[in-house]
Amino acid sequence: MLKRHLPILSWLPHYNRRLCGADLLAGVIVTVMVIPQSLAYAILAGLPAVVGLYASLLPLLAYAVLGTSRTLAVGPVAIVALMTGAALARVATPGSPEYLQAALVLSLLSGLMLIAMGLLRMGFLANFLSHPVIGGFLSASGILIAASQAGHLLGIDVETSDLLPRLAEIARELPQLHAPTFAIGIGTLLFLLLMRRRGARILKRLRMPASLAELVARAGPVFAVIVTTWVTRRFDLDAQGVAVIGDIPQGLPPLTLPGFDPSLWQDLLVPAFLISVVGFIESVSMGQMLAARRRERISPNQELVGLGGANLAASITAGMPVTGGLSRTVINYDAGARTPMAGIFAAAGIGLVTLFFTPLLYHLPIATLAATITVSILTLVDVPMIRQTWRYSRSDFSAMAVTIVLTLGNGVEAGIIGGVALSIGLFLYRTSRPHSALVGRIPGTEHFRNVVRHDTETSSHLALLRIDESLYFANARYLEDTVYDLVATHPELEHVVLICSAVNLVDASALESLDAINARLKDSRVTLHLAEVKGPVMDQLKRSDFLDVMTGRVFLSTYAAWRELAKPST
Amino acid sequence: MLKRHLPILSWLPHYNRRLCGADLLAGVIVTVMVIPQSLAYAILAGLPAVVGLYASLLPLLAYAVLGTSRTLAVGPVAIVALMTGAALARVATPGSPEYLQAALVLSLLSGLMLIAMGLLRMGFLANFLSHPVIGGFLSASGILIAASQAGHLLGIDVETSDLLPRLAEIARELPQLHAPTFAIGIGTLLFLLLMRRRGARILKRLRMPASLAELVARAGPVFAVIVTTWVTRRFDLDAQGVAVIGDIPQGLPPLTLPGFDPSLWQDLLVPAFLISVVGFIESVSMGQMLAARRRERISPNQELVGLGGANLAASITAGMPVTGGLSRTVINYDAGARTPMAGIFAAAGIGLVTLFFTPLLYHLPIATLAATITVSILTLVDVPMIRQTWRYSRSDFSAMAVTIVLTLGNGVEAGIIGGVALSIGLFLYRTSRPHSALVGRIPGTEHFRNVVRHDTETSSHLALLRIDESLYFANARYLEDTVYDLVATHPELEHVVLICSAVNLVDASALESLDAINARLKDSRVTLHLAEVKGPVMDQLKRSDFLDVMTGRVFLSTYAAWRELAKPST
Repeated sequence: MLKRHLPILSWLPHYNRRLCGADLLAGVIVTVMVIPQSLAYAILAGLPAVVGLYASLLPLLAYAVLGTSRTLAVGPVAIVALMTGAALARVATPGSPEYLQAALVLSLLSGLMLIAMGLLRMGFLANFLSHPVIGGFLSASGILIAASQAGHLLGIDVETSDLLPRLAEIARELPQLHAPTFAIGIGTLLFLLLMRRRGARILKRLRMPASLAELVARAGPVFAVIVTTWVTRRFDLDAQGVAVIGDIPQGLPPLTLPGFDPSLWQDLLVPAFLISVVGFIESVSMGQMLAARRRERISPNQELVGLGGANLAASITAGMPVTGGLSRTVINYDAGARTPMAGIFAAAGIGLVTLFFTPLLYHLPIATLAATITVSILTLVDVPMIRQTWRYSRSDFSAMAVTIVLTLGNGVEAGIIGGVALSIGLFLYRTSRPHSALVGRIPGTEHFRNVVRHDTETSSHLALLRIDESLYFANARYLEDTVYDLVATHPELEHVVLICSAVNLVDASALESLDAINARLKDSRVTLHLAEVKGPVMDQLKRSDFLDVMTGRVFLSTYAAWRELAKPST
Repeated sequence: MLKRHLPILSWLPHYNRRLCGADLLAGVIVTVMVIPQSLAYAILAGLPAVVGLYASLLPLLAYAVLGTSRTLAVGPVAIVALMTGAALARVATPGSPEYLQAALVLSLLSGLMLIAMGLLRMGFLANFLSHPVIGGFLSASGILIAASQAGHLLGIDVETSDLLPRLAEIARELPQLHAPTFAIGIGTLLFLLLMRRRGARILKRLRMPASLAELVARAGPVFAVIVTTWVTRRFDLDAQGVAVIGDIPQGLPPLTLPGFDPSLWQDLLVPAFLISVVGFIESVSMGQMLAARRRERISPNQELVGLGGANLAASITAGMPVTGGLSRTVINYDAGARTPMAGIFAAAGIGLVTLFFTPLLYHLPIATLAATITVSILTLVDVPMIRQTWRYSRSDFSAMAVTIVLTLGNGVEAGIIGGVALSIGLFLYRTSRPHSALVGRIPGTEHFRNVVRHDTETSSHLALLRIDESLYFANARYLEDTVYDLVATHPELEHVVLICSAVNLVDASALESLDAINARLKDSRVTLHLAEVKGPVMDQLKRSDFLDVMTGRVFLSTYAAWRELAKPST
């Protein structure tokens, strides 16, 4: 019981020196690798860069205690930072104390919601974000993030925030671009793309061991940060107008208490919920993938608690919403992390940096960070997946297309909500016309098949209608129409048997429809029967008076109904 | 084609003197009967009484031309009037010109939406209002309407509009009630209740022919109007403070043009949609019931157009939103109407009243109308239905309870939206855990049944998993878990066969899950097969590369899979 709620108890007692060595190495590597990321995502959310570091301290400890994945690394991630920025910009001005305060409230709400969902075992809610909607959302978010970074990359001050006006403004201002910034930004971008696409291969050709080559190639952003910071400092480029990080306060994060302002809390409820769900999906799907590779298992509901704890921790240490991040987790995993202790070591490392080394980051150009973000989000734009979805199902594709268009045009929240609503709507529409088939007997057997597709024996006095879906409010009326049409077109009918082998549910609306069908058939002197009703459905029907008023009987099998009612005519 | 869009063409050419006689009588009776109703519902919506008469003129002609029901009578009805009042009160002050203008815009929007839904064949949208939600909504609306009339009945000026504060205010002010108004209101109420419950029986005992007795009993409101108006006039009760209808402008309605004010239109979009859908459901369910009795058929999509036309007509003749009304339709039907010509005659009759007889209505007490409304909405509160739903299904009951609570506490729109959202949510939740069963062979046959419920032959190397629901985003993940658990608990497994006989759909998310299952089983050296895949599902799977990467085969029948893969161990 205690172990289920405090997963740390399942590994800490068996912790040993061998595990510690592996985790320590991973912790050091993660520390170095995630610093540029953490700064960049804080800026993406419109927050001071240092907030990204603060959000990589206590939240890691909280997750290490509460989370079930051995290798997941939490912290600020691109999508959540984008959603955070969009939510905060609506309630406060970037740069103001209210904006910082709102970020804390957002973390707090998100933390509380995640924990509540975990304790109430509501992880299933994430299933309602279908793959096409998530895929479309990530692709569109990637484009939004790239557009948000374009100004930093080129050294152009952009004022509009909507996608199309922003792109137009950038195009208009292109002649005024700031050459040194542009050189740093585009240079870093090309270098990072090269490292990502070819780095490992080139290093291996230079006789570097494969695993080290992979790691070094992934350290591209770290080299870029070191080199561009040094160049900027050496040539005083910040005096010439290259935007740099500047002063970062030294020391551990202050303890903060998110204030209670009912109207602010209310405004942030929906964004906090969406951030929680999206963050959870990103985190848990990666956690499951990595756990599967090592034949471990994670518990989605406890993961909610772990991520919730991490966000609560962020809210009391001047942080921002966090979740399990793709790139930092892959770094952690590849660097050989074995237990969440690696996360604790990384937190310690980032703590040391925050305490002593932030002055070194003064000359780090914003353009370098923009290039880092841009390259890392390129993987989000998944064109092959879009093409596959188009080929596989127009209906899934339309949910995806709506998600993309709404995300690009109306923002991240509209995109998710619209996509989910449409995919639910399409599903309901599809089930609102339940598949049904008239069946006949395969001669000489007890099998019954669709009369259209098979050579069957039928009786003109008897209609055997197999219903292929559960009956509920959205499709009950359609069943009525089907039966009425059947009776209207078959004047010799005396018996209609509804074969319910695929019916798992008859809700109150469908019960009304069955009642109506029974009454209407009675008026037409046709008897209504049921066959192959499942146990739970039968139990429920017995709680109404339908079975008493039904004109016919309930048969255990279709064959029993046939034997009793058919007067074979073919 | 023309006949489909102008149903009048299907009956007018065959119109004859016999039909005309029947329709004329019905038209006269409806004229007399619906005048109190029409005035009362206009007042319920916060509009001048005369608007109710205007809304019973041109809309009837429009429906006669465009509607498919022979006997449906359109006009202002209680629920729609309640919803209209709630929507208008949010955008304008009752009594102001803006309020009247908003009523026209609401009718126009509702008309346009109904016509659009009809032309786009979207009548199925109405199916998403499940029976429990409609039932709960009508019951709660009945209570709201009764509460809104209580002040008029008792002669108390009530200022609050929310249910509980309103009841509290009435209770507090009870000692100040206006005795003459109270006498008229409660007297009328008791008289109408008596007529409704016992009227026909008493009259029949007095040797009146049965059909006439029914009609006279239903004319209770007309007698009440005549008597109380006469009493009020005779004893100058209006001078003593009994509220009366007062001056009603004489003459036909003015032609009006709903103005275009974007922000007003936007505010009224959602209410107009809800009014359209609720009005359509009330109207079409009654139309179907009556059509069935006479073996006629109505077309739901053309009904949308007919009701839409009626609302457009209301919007250009100073009216209010209308729909097919329960009580006026029953009166029309029982009075012997045969064709929509009866509606045209009724419109002509109400036109005559509006032209010449409105001064007679000057002394009609508001309390009489309040009593009329109260008695007629009592039928909406359907306690037995609530009890049955509770017995039949807790889940349906909870949707109903939420609808009732939200309607009473937060208003009609919150009630409907909340109820629909919850019933959809509950359905999705139920399907999000698809039923599945391990099946085994009934020895010596080709039949396979649930191993838990039947005595079956199984093989420890082979799992036959029957999936009882379509696979889509909300339940795909659950299937993954089921299969993984199966493999984890059966170490000897070599083959898993998913029996897809009940799967009508595999959407893109479920396809990803199948892919994931296949990959995970491959890692565990277990082969994945499918069996009994339906034709359309197979066609769709072929559009992806799943069948190429799947480790196993697709079997036509479970028995074929068994023959191939089983090494019987029991």
